[in-house]
Amino acid sequence: MSATPRLFVDADLEAGSDIQLEGDQAHYLTRVMRLGPGAPVRLFNGRDGEFDAKLASSAKHTANLSLIAQTRTQQTPPDLWLLFAPLKKTRTDFVVEKAVELGVAEILPVLTDRCEVGTVRTDRLQRIAIEAAEQTERLDVPPIREGASLDSVLSGWQPTRTLYFADEAGDDGEKPWGGETGRALPMAAVVAARGSGPAAILIGPEGGFSPAERKRLRSLPFVAPVGLGPRILRAETAAVTALTLWQSIAGDWN
Amino acid sequence: MSATPRLFVDADLEAGSDIQLEGDQAHYLTRVMRLGPGAPVRLFNGRDGEFDAKLASSAKHTANLSLIAQTRTQQTPPDLWLLFAPLKKTRTDFVVEKAVELGVAEILPVLTDRCEVGTVRTDRLQRIAIEAAEQTERLDVPPIREGASLDSVLSGWQPTRTLYFADEAGDDGEKPWGGETGRALPMAAVVAARGSGPAAILIGPEGGFSPAERKRLRSLPFVAPVGLGPRILRAETAAVTALTLWQSIAGDWN
Repeated sequence: MSATPRLFVDADLEAGSDIQLEGDQAHYLTRVMRLGPGAPVRLFNGRDGEFDAKLASSAKHTANLSLIAQTRTQQTPPDLWLLFAPLKKTRTDFVVEKAVELGVAEILPVLTDRCEVGTVRTDRLQRIAIEAAEQTERLDVPPIREGASLDSVLSGWQPTRTLYFADEAGDDGEKPWGGETGRALPMAAVVAARGSGPAAILIGPEGGFSPAERKRLRSLPFVAPVGLGPRILRAETAAVTALTLWQSIAGDWN
Repeated sequence: MSATPRLFVDADLEAGSDIQLEGDQAHYLTRVMRLGPGAPVRLFNGRDGEFDAKLASSAKHTANLSLIAQTRTQQTPPDLWLLFAPLKKTRTDFVVEKAVELGVAEILPVLTDRCEVGTVRTDRLQRIAIEAAEQTERLDVPPIREGASLDSVLSGWQPTRTLYFADEAGDDGEKPWGGETGRALPMAAVVAARGSGPAAILIGPEGGFSPAERKRLRSLPFVAPVGLGPRILRAETAAVTALTLWQSIAGDWN
């Protein structure tokens, strides 16, 4: 929580160089934050680490920044993807924001049989991801992939990447635990057994996966069904908990 | 995700008895859900487990239910409390909803030096907790305690309850990891070492704890500072991740 503005930019970052910001970013620095010449700004672009900069000058629609020095070198997040079925608007926004905070490398909206929402505004979600990355001290912004059907995503899957499938809400009312069928092992145990290779987490829509989807998922060798405790979690809660457990056990929290 | 309405009620629940609902709950069943006589409803009261019931009759402001049979016996959640500094409205609502989903036993708003919000509408938060419990298949509703200052909460603390303190945002810009001071061990390791006794998780406000608060917290024998990974998490994300890790390691997820 630093009071110094932190912005994600496209330009290459190099000590001693200058960059010009336009549009929303210039407006933010000069009008919203009301910075004057000399004010500190932090910049990152996903390639060159993080730089201290200062506002050199501003005009009506531009802000010129002088780069001072690199303060952090570029880092790559753990190789973890989030696949999620789009939810209603604010809950989808929430999932993207939290996935960025929790350090996922890519975000893929997947359309499933019971999706509440049929289209995904990836440009809008990408802006949310940028804002979250700016706030969370990340040095990169995970890309939001174009929405694709679950079927096509599974058909094109690289089998070396484990797909953790949160088998949370049974399609026939069964409990994720205690039911005779469909019982998934606790996620912590499954991740500990699989270790830290490339991974993805798949979160279904509020209505769960259809019987055909669950059958296919459970038949695939790269899919690991996991349980997230004895209570029913909302989809966005399941996303946060699953990302937390993976990062804590196989990711960069240790 | 069951389509059968599930309601938290005050009345004792016993097979063969009838209960009458009024006000919002009667309105919900008869007007919102438009249930007719014979429609199934599930009920719990935090004491008697869960019961199947059916709508027997309804009038303008009442709904009469006949209790059929107990379907689940009462269970007690793990002995985990959440203490959190109130955030702006929707984020506080979110923390309460998620804490209920994640099975906390009690929720205590604590007022800290840098709280953004000085008052807590506990009645409102209690209603959010009830709705979350209804949706998440819980058999109880965690109480929302009256807001109290962090100082008074700490002074009255039973030292047998471990207080996990998410030392996320340093007060002087230091990183929770990598800094020379204030470095906390990863929460998973700390919880695994402490085991499954009574516990509480303390989440500070967006601005973090003040230097005086951190100093006092770190001096107390029942307080365990914990880290939640290398990125800066928002307060509500920290709450969800910390609850997840505790439940997964020391709670009822195994």
